[in-house]
Amino acid sequence: MHTLWEHRYAQRTERMSGSAIRELLKLTEQPDTISFAGGLPAPEIFPVQEFLAATERVLHGENGALALQYSTTDGYRPLREMIARHSLRYGIQVNADNVLITSGSQQALDLLGKIFINRGDRILVEAPTYLGALQAWNAYGAEYVPVPMDENGMNTDELEQALRTGPKFIYVLPNFQNPTGVTLSLERRARLVELAERYGVPIVEDDPYGQLRYEGDHLPSLVNLDAQLQGHCELNYTGNVIYLSTFSKILAPGIRVAWVIAPPNVIHKLVLAKQGTDLQTATLNQMVTFEMARGGFLDRHIQTIREVYSARRDAMLSAMQEHFPHAVHWTKPEGGLFLWGILPEGENARHVLEAALREKVAFVPGAPFYPNGRGENTMRLNFSNMPIVKIHDGIARLGQVLQRELGEVELEEVIA
Amino acid sequence: MHTLWEHRYAQRTERMSGSAIRELLKLTEQPDTISFAGGLPAPEIFPVQEFLAATERVLHGENGALALQYSTTDGYRPLREMIARHSLRYGIQVNADNVLITSGSQQALDLLGKIFINRGDRILVEAPTYLGALQAWNAYGAEYVPVPMDENGMNTDELEQALRTGPKFIYVLPNFQNPTGVTLSLERRARLVELAERYGVPIVEDDPYGQLRYEGDHLPSLVNLDAQLQGHCELNYTGNVIYLSTFSKILAPGIRVAWVIAPPNVIHKLVLAKQGTDLQTATLNQMVTFEMARGGFLDRHIQTIREVYSARRDAMLSAMQEHFPHAVHWTKPEGGLFLWGILPEGENARHVLEAALREKVAFVPGAPFYPNGRGENTMRLNFSNMPIVKIHDGIARLGQVLQRELGEVELEEVIA
Repeated sequence: MHTLWEHRYAQRTERMSGSAIRELLKLTEQPDTISFAGGLPAPEIFPVQEFLAATERVLHGENGALALQYSTTDGYRPLREMIARHSLRYGIQVNADNVLITSGSQQALDLLGKIFINRGDRILVEAPTYLGALQAWNAYGAEYVPVPMDENGMNTDELEQALRTGPKFIYVLPNFQNPTGVTLSLERRARLVELAERYGVPIVEDDPYGQLRYEGDHLPSLVNLDAQLQGHCELNYTGNVIYLSTFSKILAPGIRVAWVIAPPNVIHKLVLAKQGTDLQTATLNQMVTFEMARGGFLDRHIQTIREVYSARRDAMLSAMQEHFPHAVHWTKPEGGLFLWGILPEGENARHVLEAALREKVAFVPGAPFYPNGRGENTMRLNFSNMPIVKIHDGIARLGQVLQRELGEVELEEVIA
Repeated sequence: MHTLWEHRYAQRTERMSGSAIRELLKLTEQPDTISFAGGLPAPEIFPVQEFLAATERVLHGENGALALQYSTTDGYRPLREMIARHSLRYGIQVNADNVLITSGSQQALDLLGKIFINRGDRILVEAPTYLGALQAWNAYGAEYVPVPMDENGMNTDELEQALRTGPKFIYVLPNFQNPTGVTLSLERRARLVELAERYGVPIVEDDPYGQLRYEGDHLPSLVNLDAQLQGHCELNYTGNVIYLSTFSKILAPGIRVAWVIAPPNVIHKLVLAKQGTDLQTATLNQMVTFEMARGGFLDRHIQTIREVYSARRDAMLSAMQEHFPHAVHWTKPEGGLFLWGILPEGENARHVLEAALREKVAFVPGAPFYPNGRGENTMRLNFSNMPIVKIHDGIARLGQVLQRELGEVELEEVIA
């Protein structure tokens, strides 16, 4: 007889479900589908040559063999030091002891769940919020306290009531949020940091896209504002904010190198958790990332990414203006990879997707990004992955689908 | 005020403690210390040139940019297919749907804990067993049912009583076990698989060193014996064994590429868990690993590793014979990276280590490898990482330390 596996799994396994995004990506893998569904960078501008050259320098270097050996759990020290120096540019006063290297930001989310979340703990989140965070924390039995957003990000007027539910921490993506593309205003950033301090609730600030700003001025990060509020100006940050960022969007996601900035006490616990989770992030990948970033190449490359994505965003926005029905609204992100479409109340974006897939165009319906339901009439559109000609074509097709779908509903309503 | 982090952590965080091995490694990082402490491969035989050449072929290839892009959670399909074909060589009848790529075997252990272990679940383990597994599963609240070992591995006569405690699964390292270097005999393998089947308890077979055999004949894996017992001969294994292995010991640990073989139902749950944990293992690392392995290079390289490690094992065994006191006993492993020293009852290997570190030689005391205590008089010695001349020198120094330490105790006893 075989093992009855279904009767062996842990309780938490019942809470694991496939990512709607990943399942949809499978649907859109046919090369003739124009997909605005994934959150993929543009592979045609990946710095393949520079990557190879950096790998050569690392492996031919004095300590080439060390790149293939086991290394420490906290990460390659020169890379951690460089991240600390880089953070200083943005006014984040930290040193290498505040930095942990992770295997992508998804691992940072998992490790935070592991060290903080008891079954039933509440996490305060934006509604909608990043699906990967929900997936990571569902496994630890998290519950969610959603706070609504508008075009300036999380509505901080509703924050105080949410804080009084006693959340374990606040999770927020202040820059060009996934999924909405919305940026948290400076005023609300200050308010958020102040309320977090007042209620003694820490913040997890997820910032994968912060450097991909296409217009407007850089806004100070929450960790920066918190350090100011704490009156902290030494290089060993010990405040209320845990900050996440990644090389996935500014270099390449296929190498899985990201980082956490946090008070040293939290870094220590994350290191213990990471030891048991994957021992360490790949040594070679960390050394090659350091090699690429240290010479100034990364800064130039980020400029290229901004130019390409900014043009794609503009192309998508103008095509939507031209082709989408008036009843549909959308955000105008100042950076990042995504924008957010809002259909009239009562419409269902999942039905629109089904019709769109028949026309070989794809996006992600917004409902799964709401932890406690809602958002059936919303949709996430990615503008980084498709070239402009396909953006034009895809948005035109999607516009036709929307005209038809929204028209039909109106007709049905008339008949009813 | 700052966040009171200590009051924010989850209950499971209390069970996370630093690895004794990792802490000790820090002590032994001085270049003049001869360390038998870590489990490190020999970096001087890492195939640095071949690695670079494979990276070039991948990045210059038709789909070079895809190596830097996001990819699927289950892993790079050509690599999974190759692992399935390779497993057939050893009589393991599986296909790619039975294979998941993980970020090192440590991640496989973590994911198994995540999908199987509820707080308080019992895991049946060899005593001593691999410390990294205990670290991974402590975070999920595992308890342990240890079964003693002798020179033929886990004592299967004591297995039935342990199985009646209702363990979630059995964890066993049948080949050149970490920490003891002991191999489970064929007779006991058959008995273990049969008892697992009779009690309906699955087996996790951890096999990082199986291909590093220096003498004697290859023994069939548990997954192989289980498939025979199930009368299963199709290419979609659905039995009782989950099998783990890795490229860390046959290629390089710094790239973090390993694999799990399991029934497709279990692979599916592991994939869901991995999605929330780190999305995927680095695409580039999987493609480069495939590129290195597919041309036959890996087979030749494993032959080189066997020759080097086998000579180092022989050097260590003969030096121990020459320099260690008669009261000390040790295992004679047929492969792998480690051997196990046993001091007389009442001796404490931790005290020996302290004295040894003063003489600039290091090993790992055995007690932490016992989940429920014991083993204070045991020690793990690694023979893969140090060149032969240092093995001679280090074992001579350690022999003097042991002569002195064991002699002192005898003297004290005489005086008392």
